[in-house]
Amino acid sequence: MNDTPLFLRACRREPTERTPVWLMRQAGRYLPEYKAVRAKVDFLTLCRTPELACEVTLQPLRRFPLDAAILFSDLLVPLEAMGATVTFPEEGGPAIADGVKTPADVDRLRTPPAAEALPYVAESVKLLCAELKVPLIGFAGAPFTLASYLIEGGTSRNFTKTKKFLYQHPEAAERLFDKLATMVADLLNLQAASGCRALQIFDSWAGALDPDDYARWGEAWTRRIVDAVRPAGVPVIVFAKGTGTYLEKPAATGADVLGIDWTLPLDRARAIVGPGQALQGNLDPVRLLGPWEPLREAIDRVVAAAGGDGHVFNLGHGILPETPIDNVARLVDRVHERSAR
Amino acid sequence: MNDTPLFLRACRREPTERTPVWLMRQAGRYLPEYKAVRAKVDFLTLCRTPELACEVTLQPLRRFPLDAAILFSDLLVPLEAMGATVTFPEEGGPAIADGVKTPADVDRLRTPPAAEALPYVAESVKLLCAELKVPLIGFAGAPFTLASYLIEGGTSRNFTKTKKFLYQHPEAAERLFDKLATMVADLLNLQAASGCRALQIFDSWAGALDPDDYARWGEAWTRRIVDAVRPAGVPVIVFAKGTGTYLEKPAATGADVLGIDWTLPLDRARAIVGPGQALQGNLDPVRLLGPWEPLREAIDRVVAAAGGDGHVFNLGHGILPETPIDNVARLVDRVHERSAR
Repeated sequence: MNDTPLFLRACRREPTERTPVWLMRQAGRYLPEYKAVRAKVDFLTLCRTPELACEVTLQPLRRFPLDAAILFSDLLVPLEAMGATVTFPEEGGPAIADGVKTPADVDRLRTPPAAEALPYVAESVKLLCAELKVPLIGFAGAPFTLASYLIEGGTSRNFTKTKKFLYQHPEAAERLFDKLATMVADLLNLQAASGCRALQIFDSWAGALDPDDYARWGEAWTRRIVDAVRPAGVPVIVFAKGTGTYLEKPAATGADVLGIDWTLPLDRARAIVGPGQALQGNLDPVRLLGPWEPLREAIDRVVAAAGGDGHVFNLGHGILPETPIDNVARLVDRVHERSAR
Repeated sequence: MNDTPLFLRACRREPTERTPVWLMRQAGRYLPEYKAVRAKVDFLTLCRTPELACEVTLQPLRRFPLDAAILFSDLLVPLEAMGATVTFPEEGGPAIADGVKTPADVDRLRTPPAAEALPYVAESVKLLCAELKVPLIGFAGAPFTLASYLIEGGTSRNFTKTKKFLYQHPEAAERLFDKLATMVADLLNLQAASGCRALQIFDSWAGALDPDDYARWGEAWTRRIVDAVRPAGVPVIVFAKGTGTYLEKPAATGADVLGIDWTLPLDRARAIVGPGQALQGNLDPVRLLGPWEPLREAIDRVVAAAGGDGHVFNLGHGILPETPIDNVARLVDRVHERSAR
């Protein structure tokens, strides 16, 4: 046995005795103990209160033998620090009333030092690291995904306003992405300096872009962030959802680990990116809502397609609020059992 | 010059002097003359009234030298004939209040002969064929996409209810897809018999499925429909949006033409499917909202990646209501000019 945690070895493509597993949004609404905390505080208060963020981060680890924890927070937290007003209504996605509608709006956004603007992030990470027996993952959003929230004013189906802004105001968009990349890199470095042992960059809506737009607005800016956090010395995971038809581009960001959604089998992903990067994924989270037998078959297919070392088992997107807890427990056990070398 | 229309030659991979172009939703809300018609009648009345459906189908042809027309109708029209109550609110997508929530709901759906249940479809096609100088395309939805409207009760973001139904009730889902495939094949055959010279099967939400689910719920049922309309002797276009990471599966439906969305460059699509099928696509429709210069560059990239014969220029999804008409005019001209052999 090696002293380095399983998850970190898999991120670095070192040999592992079995495949590590964690789940995007593993702390969240499918857990009654999470809902009990949320019944007392609103979502942003939860993100901003280290004791509470720490508590909900630990909740899934108490139930399941997961191989990593991920800091409880939200992609939009740095946008608040930049001067946007973010709200999380109980129904529907987040809303930003004073986002970016014109180039002049870009110039109003600030990039304060993360340690000053988001002190609770460092504090949460430190509290968690004192408790955790597995590595803690820090995270932030990629500039395109964050820009889409600012420009659309919330979630979107077609990202029409965002792409139109990129086409009509490319220079203002460069300024916006520069600010976002600066803020995000600083936040990720703060997380690593506070104790996070891996960092994930979420480009959740990258798949809306065609390959040329992704090269300019996804890959280039994500690479800048990867470069900026490289001195922290922790593995960087890039999850650019929906980019399976041009996976060589997220791979070219220099990520140590590439997150893969459920539309691209992991053996195909491996054939595209070669042996140099670990892969993370890629079960469709909706499968967890169905019966065990087809779920088990789908888990086994993911484990088989990944082929062993250099794989971090995960979902292809966040776990859904209506997920039965029993299926999560069985999934974690099945991955461990099935992937034993 | 060959007497066979350019569009049909491209569908059959025969030599063409330039690339034909049509646009998904080319009759629609970006045209003031369409909005003028809609100001007088509701959406379903428009679909059901041959003179009006004919008028709006012809509107874009009067403005632009398009190489094909597509019957004005809606994917959900056959669901009405099957007994579902479909409404189209002015805001938001279509709604089906009495769709499929349980296996028993499947058994209530009927599959009446299209000629009896949807007589206005045949009448519209006949009226149009008397007027048109270019081929008319008929169309219908693939079973997965239609099932998703029935099960979700409308449009959806994650297709959670639909996929859950497939996992929990696979036998009822097979019965549902069997009814949908029967109805759709009958409708497409009616369109061809009435004068349509090509047929397109839209699997708009196929990209929500992982490759295994698409093989069972997309590819297999679409192939059955392609086989059922084969005797009509017209080219069949299969557009399974979002399936670029497993394009060999929609290709295996036996389609003559594969619709490709904007996430997969056409030269890559060609490398996957080989020389046997024509390709249709694949400009991101949001590009039409931006300025001309980057739009022109994107059009030229699509034409170049397609490589000439066996390409039908189109968007990667329907044209957006806010599209400037001038950009559409310039796009059609640019494709014709740029692709001249």
